[in-house]
Amino acid sequence: MAVITFMSDFGREDHYIAAVKGAILRQNPSINIVDISHEVKVGDIGQAAYLLKNVFREFPKGTVHLCAVDRMAKEPSRQLALKVEDHFFVGPDSGVFSLISQERPMAIVDINIVRPIMSTFMSKDLLAPVAANLASGKNIHEMGKPVDSVYELFARKLKVTKREIAGNVIRVDHYGNLITNIEKKEYETIQKINGNVAFDITIGRESVGTIHKHYADVDSGECFVFFNSLGHLQIGINKGNAAELLGLKLDTPITINFHV
Amino acid sequence: MAVITFMSDFGREDHYIAAVKGAILRQNPSINIVDISHEVKVGDIGQAAYLLKNVFREFPKGTVHLCAVDRMAKEPSRQLALKVEDHFFVGPDSGVFSLISQERPMAIVDINIVRPIMSTFMSKDLLAPVAANLASGKNIHEMGKPVDSVYELFARKLKVTKREIAGNVIRVDHYGNLITNIEKKEYETIQKINGNVAFDITIGRESVGTIHKHYADVDSGECFVFFNSLGHLQIGINKGNAAELLGLKLDTPITINFHV
Amino acid sequence: MAVITFMSDFGREDHYIAAVKGAILRQNPSINIVDISHEVKVGDIGQAAYLLKNVFREFPKGTVHLCAVDRMAKEPSRQLALKVEDHFFVGPDSGVFSLISQERPMAIVDINIVRPIMSTFMSKDLLAPVAANLASGKNIHEMGKPVDSVYELFARKLKVTKREIAGNVIRVDHYGNLITNIEKKEYETIQKINGNVAFDITIGRESVGTIHKHYADVDSGECFVFFNSLGHLQIGINKGNAAELLGLKLDTPITINFHV
Repeated sequence: MAVITFMSDFGREDHYIAAVKGAILRQNPSINIVDISHEVKVGDIGQAAYLLKNVFREFPKGTVHLCAVDRMAKEPSRQLALKVEDHFFVGPDSGVFSLISQERPMAIVDINIVRPIMSTFMSKDLLAPVAANLASGKNIHEMGKPVDSVYELFARKLKVTKREIAGNVIRVDHYGNLITNIEKKEYETIQKINGNVAFDITIGRESVGTIHKHYADVDSGECFVFFNSLGHLQIGINKGNAAELLGLKLDTPITINFHV
Repeated sequence: MAVITFMSDFGREDHYIAAVKGAILRQNPSINIVDISHEVKVGDIGQAAYLLKNVFREFPKGTVHLCAVDRMAKEPSRQLALKVEDHFFVGPDSGVFSLISQERPMAIVDINIVRPIMSTFMSKDLLAPVAANLASGKNIHEMGKPVDSVYELFARKLKVTKREIAGNVIRVDHYGNLITNIEKKEYETIQKINGNVAFDITIGRESVGTIHKHYADVDSGECFVFFNSLGHLQIGINKGNAAELLGLKLDTPITINFHV
Repeated sequence: MAVITFMSDFGREDHYIAAVKGAILRQNPSINIVDISHEVKVGDIGQAAYLLKNVFREFPKGTVHLCAVDRMAKEPSRQLALKVEDHFFVGPDSGVFSLISQERPMAIVDINIVRPIMSTFMSKDLLAPVAANLASGKNIHEMGKPVDSVYELFARKLKVTKREIAGNVIRVDHYGNLITNIEKKEYETIQKINGNVAFDITIGRESVGTIHKHYADVDSGECFVFFNSLGHLQIGINKGNAAELLGLKLDTPITINFHV
């Protein structure tokens, strides 16, 4: 049974989500449609990319991911279908597709160039049928004309030296966990050079000298710092809301200082 | 694979949505159930009708639409199943069914008259099994006794003359777009009579002299007026929230003045 | 077609719900996944149990119910799979499983003891594949090692005498209905002893001398008291919001005084 995931900034009060699903099922009523989130902030490409990057590999290979979040630009975006790591992606060329994988796309096609349509509801009139076709096994090259590259956005860069990795909080989740753009691989590279020296992680006014493995490593109410399942440095409070208790939020700087 | 859509005013914190879905799947576990919205305001028939009317035709013919929104009346509503434009509808006779289509129903049956049940959860105990039966291919005439007509509500009327079409905002969507009850066909009828004269559209304190085709026709931050995919006059701000920026809301009068 | 229900305290802004669904569908893409609610308050076992107990029997026998709500305890919970009343349950041993049925579980197994995994996202890495396996027909005894009992929580006790049943509001639903822990069987037991005497139900400052059958038994705006489809005494206002109009909330005492 074919699977399509669906993410948008549509919210849930209108009929827009259901209209897109209807357009998919009209083409193939046995597709299993799974919502990723429809609470993405309007036009927030960073948030859309963060969610999509973190979840798409959980789905079976061949899954089609429909991402109906567009950037706030004057010119209309191109509408693309991509194949990346054996998954398919369909959506406006908002920059989101430059942020979800380090691997080169296996295919990129412009799906609105052969018989272009103009619509004020492209997700329903163009993306839904293309997603349904891909999920039903049609070849991506039948969906449009090949293009060379996607619109590129750059993730906010880390400052990485022998003495310091300086990053930011890139997401505060439902539980108040603070997720940063500091990744395990940078940490390990620097520690290899430094020879596993001691360090301090500065989190607002708090300082922590260890990276933990499990929540159970710290007492209730204490600060818990670990690399999450996606390799991002994450800060939580065991049985508490870190964002509230530490008074931190999106974009707060987080620094690892190495004792060298 | 059979499809049932489901709309209600249940909200998402309780087990009510899942209870209805369970009752459907207990009858036929392979039905594909698609939520339309469960954020309808309690008892808001106008909103329910607006969503349903705008979305049902996106689904495959034969889809069953379960609409569990009832009006706030003292007497219990009849419980109906209808066939309209080759789609099925199941729900209380709240008036919603008089607003979703201009076409005559192909069948209307009272589903709680042959072996009437009394329950404080009719959506689960009556509507869900009837919807599952219809989706599984049973004949609508086996579901109840034919009735002649549905409870009729009247959509708020437009004032239409050679000089003016005066309507209202009937919906403010998630993006702040203002959707009106002025439809393309009335506009075209009057313009045919007038011979395509110039006009002004009055939107609060703003005035616009054009109906646009695409968002790209106006600059960012400018007012964008167009007939949406459903033929309703819609007012947006390119890359902005029209309701907030124009200070308008549900029921605000919107007028087209023709220069005759 | 196999059905898995899914309840959590994840909220809807993150990718967590979709990650668990992806992990299920990766194992078996034709499973029908139904959300119960993801708006459970973080760690609120009472609410999770209330929802699950009230809804699981609506689903076909053999349905797997994944309940990803854990209690706020220092030690990590065991991870269990249970068979109860021919339904399967998978989740942390939070106490929720002691509250959903009066019947003895047909099987209880610890699913993280044979080849234990440690993960900061157990719902995805452990619960999802076990749920998918059970839904696909695997035997529960292949999923782990049998254990004797679940972690037991006790529902708040009623005070029951010949003269009085004293309980509390245990849930305020989306409509403002007040649902209590006073059950029909206790009421009937006492009334059998008392010989069906008259009584008063005290609800804040209001008092009602009858238990109604249907909303239509009272006028609009009047207090409506009945045993709901689950046998719980429930207080509503016909066409109104009881919690708001009566000024009552979770935990408010509700008393039936018998005239003996």
